[in-house]
Amino acid sequence: MAVSESQLIERYFRGLGARRDDTVLGIGDDAALLRVPAGCELALTTDALIEGVHFLPGAAPRALGHRALAVNLSDIAAMGASPSWALLSLNLPLADEAWLGEFAAGFGALARAHDVALVGGNLSRGALSITVQLAGLVPAGEALRRAGARAGDDLYLSGSVGDAACGLQLLRGDAVAVAADAAWLRERFEYPAPRAALGQALRGVASACIDVSDGVYIDATRLLAASGCGATLELERLPLSPALRRTLGDEAWRSALWGGEDYELCFAAAQAQAGAVLALAARTGQAVTRIGALHPGAGLTLTSAGEVMQFSPSGFDHFGN
Amino acid sequence: MAVSESQLIERYFRGLGARRDDTVLGIGDDAALLRVPAGCELALTTDALIEGVHFLPGAAPRALGHRALAVNLSDIAAMGASPSWALLSLNLPLADEAWLGEFAAGFGALARAHDVALVGGNLSRGALSITVQLAGLVPAGEALRRAGARAGDDLYLSGSVGDAACGLQLLRGDAVAVAADAAWLRERFEYPAPRAALGQALRGVASACIDVSDGVYIDATRLLAASGCGATLELERLPLSPALRRTLGDEAWRSALWGGEDYELCFAAAQAQAGAVLALAARTGQAVTRIGALHPGAGLTLTSAGEVMQFSPSGFDHFGN
Repeated sequence: MAVSESQLIERYFRGLGARRDDTVLGIGDDAALLRVPAGCELALTTDALIEGVHFLPGAAPRALGHRALAVNLSDIAAMGASPSWALLSLNLPLADEAWLGEFAAGFGALARAHDVALVGGNLSRGALSITVQLAGLVPAGEALRRAGARAGDDLYLSGSVGDAACGLQLLRGDAVAVAADAAWLRERFEYPAPRAALGQALRGVASACIDVSDGVYIDATRLLAASGCGATLELERLPLSPALRRTLGDEAWRSALWGGEDYELCFAAAQAQAGAVLALAARTGQAVTRIGALHPGAGLTLTSAGEVMQFSPSGFDHFGN
Repeated sequence: MAVSESQLIERYFRGLGARRDDTVLGIGDDAALLRVPAGCELALTTDALIEGVHFLPGAAPRALGHRALAVNLSDIAAMGASPSWALLSLNLPLADEAWLGEFAAGFGALARAHDVALVGGNLSRGALSITVQLAGLVPAGEALRRAGARAGDDLYLSGSVGDAACGLQLLRGDAVAVAADAAWLRERFEYPAPRAALGQALRGVASACIDVSDGVYIDATRLLAASGCGATLELERLPLSPALRRTLGDEAWRSALWGGEDYELCFAAAQAQAGAVLALAARTGQAVTRIGALHPGAGLTLTSAGEVMQFSPSGFDHFGN
């Protein structure tokens, strides 16, 4: 690179995101120094986006900056923690400053919106990949986990599911939609909205929580396995957006269950908390839908029109009848 | 990958490294949960190794596991912090389990030696690159920084420098050495020893500190710029290993100044601390050499036999006379 790594970091990344009083030292030394308040635990996560695996070659850099942070914000939200500090490792084939400017704009806007400071990172030459590490804070002992749900609890989803996978199909040219729906669905893939406020509000209310990155079926199954329960999910209750229904019709539920990349929250709560769930959904402005209930046993059972759906390792064979 | 990411993480990475009482929740949820003691600041850093940039294609996976953690341990050492928790993001072209086993062995052994727990990470398909994030703990207000050195301070280096760059030359076939020297120099590149105990011992003694990743010339210049000082470095004082002298002869100093990848510590301390520096070097079993002194002004001046070396943007033109 004609411009050095230090110069590019200085130009595009120093001071990116929010200013936080608990950042003692940010970018520019061997490590950042951060103050964790007494009574808080630190939540730490990392996730990577790789060209050709998690996004299409030539993807818009502003969307990549947003999405690389969003997928980590979603993990922190699923713990009920408030996000605080990020590190960024960026592998770039060449020092394209226009690309970097757009990427930083996408990353920075989402970071500021979530009060996250970028406090370190590195920039290397290599096949395009983006790794973000995110730290969050949560009152000690109050974090939400995948474990903790019990038989009798209700199972919930935030927002709508299946949109992002359909958006990716549209970007790939594997589906068609009317223009307004296509734009909205693509945005759901490119600019996922992590459910930070909802996750924090669920502390003390939800019994277990996970974010939906690999599709409702897989992620709900993970929550159930960690909690040692089974659940029944009523297919008709899956929150499907009008745009998804219009675009995929009778196949929309497949995208919802198996699609992934939605970054909604899937959580369980005791029936006695149903009113509290509705209230916090209203307070955070976040749609929340009850999609089923937990029971003793293991695994996720799907029903449609009250009938159990048949399932084989290769996928769903057919509806109940 | 025929085996899923979750299965591979479970098989090779869960429980890797030290067990720590302050790890509330490790691998297996959306984020790790960690307890930072009252009175401590958190030091956070990340560094990446990319095939073809930071290591040669086909490099031994055990060495890569070691080195990916070591370069981050070195950053934490340079802050005077004690390392605690690591996250690992691994991009692999295919799920080679023999490779993963060796990599985990190298990473795990060094992590245990430094009391570091691996608490999270992810595994993706992609061009081989390894990104580690490392958290450390340091008493509030006591971290070492690049800034803080003053005119009149002495400038020091730990260990010996230039070995790793020469080791890389040997691995590339760009240099020759007798067998024992070649093995030792290659090991200095492949298995760098982060100066963790020394860094922690330097708290309250050193006025500024940086780790030597890009070569003494560049990294000392960074320390000086952050501290607003200049310094004179006496070339004859550079700590050069016998193996390096035997292998590179009169060119050894070039590898020492410009080579990089040594992961030694370069630090400043007031003259009144000279005895304390010697004592802590003895206590930590770590060689420390005074290589020069700081003065008002800016930049690093090199002297040889008492004469200032001439320097041009393209490198050193010649010795003083």
